[in-house]
Amino acid sequence: MKTFRYEGYGIPDEDFIRGSAPMTKEEVRSLTMSKLHPGKDEVALDIGAGTGSISVELAYCCRKVYAAEMKPVALELLETNRERFGRDNMEILSGAAPDSLASIGEPLDILFLGGTGGNLRQIMDWAEDRLKPGGKMAANFITMENAVDFLRLLREYDYQEIDVTQVQIAKGRGIGKLTMLMGQNPVFIISARRRDHGEI
Amino acid sequence: MKTFRYEGYGIPDEDFIRGSAPMTKEEVRSLTMSKLHPGKDEVALDIGAGTGSISVELAYCCRKVYAAEMKPVALELLETNRERFGRDNMEILSGAAPDSLASIGEPLDILFLGGTGGNLRQIMDWAEDRLKPGGKMAANFITMENAVDFLRLLREYDYQEIDVTQVQIAKGRGIGKLTMLMGQNPVFIISARRRDHGEI
Amino acid sequence: MKTFRYEGYGIPDEDFIRGSAPMTKEEVRSLTMSKLHPGKDEVALDIGAGTGSISVELAYCCRKVYAAEMKPVALELLETNRERFGRDNMEILSGAAPDSLASIGEPLDILFLGGTGGNLRQIMDWAEDRLKPGGKMAANFITMENAVDFLRLLREYDYQEIDVTQVQIAKGRGIGKLTMLMGQNPVFIISARRRDHGEI
Amino acid sequence: MKTFRYEGYGIPDEDFIRGSAPMTKEEVRSLTMSKLHPGKDEVALDIGAGTGSISVELAYCCRKVYAAEMKPVALELLETNRERFGRDNMEILSGAAPDSLASIGEPLDILFLGGTGGNLRQIMDWAEDRLKPGGKMAANFITMENAVDFLRLLREYDYQEIDVTQVQIAKGRGIGKLTMLMGQNPVFIISARRRDHGEI
Repeated sequence: MKTFRYEGYGIPDEDFIRGSAPMTKEEVRSLTMSKLHPGKDEVALDIGAGTGSISVELAYCCRKVYAAEMKPVALELLETNRERFGRDNMEILSGAAPDSLASIGEPLDILFLGGTGGNLRQIMDWAEDRLKPGGKMAANFITMENAVDFLRLLREYDYQEIDVTQVQIAKGRGIGKLTMLMGQNPVFIISARRRDHGEI
Repeated sequence: MKTFRYEGYGIPDEDFIRGSAPMTKEEVRSLTMSKLHPGKDEVALDIGAGTGSISVELAYCCRKVYAAEMKPVALELLETNRERFGRDNMEILSGAAPDSLASIGEPLDILFLGGTGGNLRQIMDWAEDRLKPGGKMAANFITMENAVDFLRLLREYDYQEIDVTQVQIAKGRGIGKLTMLMGQNPVFIISARRRDHGEI
Repeated sequence: MKTFRYEGYGIPDEDFIRGSAPMTKEEVRSLTMSKLHPGKDEVALDIGAGTGSISVELAYCCRKVYAAEMKPVALELLETNRERFGRDNMEILSGAAPDSLASIGEPLDILFLGGTGGNLRQIMDWAEDRLKPGGKMAANFITMENAVDFLRLLREYDYQEIDVTQVQIAKGRGIGKLTMLMGQNPVFIISARRRDHGEI
Repeated sequence: MKTFRYEGYGIPDEDFIRGSAPMTKEEVRSLTMSKLHPGKDEVALDIGAGTGSISVELAYCCRKVYAAEMKPVALELLETNRERFGRDNMEILSGAAPDSLASIGEPLDILFLGGTGGNLRQIMDWAEDRLKPGGKMAANFITMENAVDFLRLLREYDYQEIDVTQVQIAKGRGIGKLTMLMGQNPVFIISARRRDHGEI
């Protein structure tokens, strides 16, 4: 197995095998990880794991990571990146969530939503049983409507410490002695904690 | 001649013939125009006019516009867009500034720098004679170094009312009922006025 | 009456009397105006006119501007700014829209929403009768939820050419020979045209 | 000693004692940390440590952190935050860099510049002897001029893997059921590695 220079988070984009699928960019990934505060004894689930960049970084920090994905092409990339980084504590779940999550036998500390295939409310319901009280949830959005719908669900399900961070990154591209700023797409990073006790 | 729906500024990008040359995007163009406050009796010069999008909008608002450009491909686009919008008060000057500007026989109210081919200091010197006291200068930059060098020259030449605006635009792209935000490159819009009197 | 240096749009913020009410900042105002493409024979309505900065700029460009506002403090500022800029073609309507709009006897070319007091759907219904087919509508939003709700209404009412522009401005503040970039709040500028014919 | 919920990086701003001094905001701090890829056996130096937010986070990740600061008020906050988080591996150096750095007896893996008091070139010279070949340097800038001058020095001193990231964060502020986006000031995060061998 190849050894990578960086462990934990902050892995450069080019270290992942990407294919043509979209991947959370390095800076947005780091910020998202930082909002999740992964702990070394924690268990995490990444729904819509895509190429697995978030799952791999979580797997460097947590005891166990479940990576759920429904698209066949992405599943292959996910497997490739798990092996590439040697993350044996990362388990891949195939199919549409929440149906695909039945085999998870332990309560979760962290739930990250990279893509939900339109089943957001079902996943929120599922999380009521499976995400620990006080457990951390985060999601990234590139569309305004999905960001707002998620925010409204977080309030409806009485999530606490809701944090909304819109991040707009521009990267310098060197052209001779000049540095041209190239804008990336803005992303909404939304994170919150499940309430500690009580019914909604 | 085709009639265009919009006159003045705020012309949509797609109304211009663009070729493969980069063009100031609609929103950055509108903001730049707004900083220049073009008046109907004023005379403007656009150095590095490119496709001519700024020159055309200036020509809707001002008495006379000189559009200087050195690249042959851009010169063709410039001519095409001048005719497309029927701007007879727009005169095209071919070659590298400031040498190419010798034929301008009247003092300028407005000087816009879209690209300077590295002759920034010579152009500042030239402007000492040709831009009216109190005259308006503006420039757009996509590189940090050129923006800073221009700012330092504005201070050295004792320009007044220096305004620095970095604008970062994201445009919504409709995907079904969703709106994805697509980031554009950030641009520095820098504007100032020549001092009203006195030597530097 | 004082004469102002600038007419049309691009009026600096400090030229307006502002009080403590929030005011659309210069750059966002210019971009919004540019999306509305005001024409000299057109009639405009500004709902939630606030200090009147958009109304005043529209009044420099259009034949007639109605400025509707319900808050007493803002109404005073609106009146002050109308007089300050000598915009006799600007008529102030007091009270909550759409009830306050009954006296408008002519069809509108332009409808700008600066604030709607929660009556967005009623205003959209009202606009079905009063905004000309092909007429221009625009609104500025600082909250994600209101931006998304407006977008959904525009689609429901079959508006055309929907444009979503999120603008994030940073202004340079000079500190000696250094330029510190100060971020403003991002604003969603959403514009569209009423469909040209047909029922929804 | 109080126990804090979060260790490593991603510590919320409000967990630090801040006084009136400016502090790197949470998101910018996380991104900066992520660019530095701190390792558990590494030694770091933070010049212009200010309130110590970066030093504290580095001290959770690295073997040893030197925090240099010249302003008396900041030195007190630095000491307070070191104790608050119980970071015994964080050593505070008082005075202007590079003179204040004489007591550092080991080569550095990481050099972070939070503020340089105008001694940038002297610090670059000092780093030629003290930062390991391949060692990581990063700095944050809020002014365009300092960012560009640092970039030019990095090129002059032949630094490798220069990364320029301009980050613009907007934070959601909940107002009832609405989320208002509040813009922060944009920051340039610039990072690079010292060349591995050879003279400049």
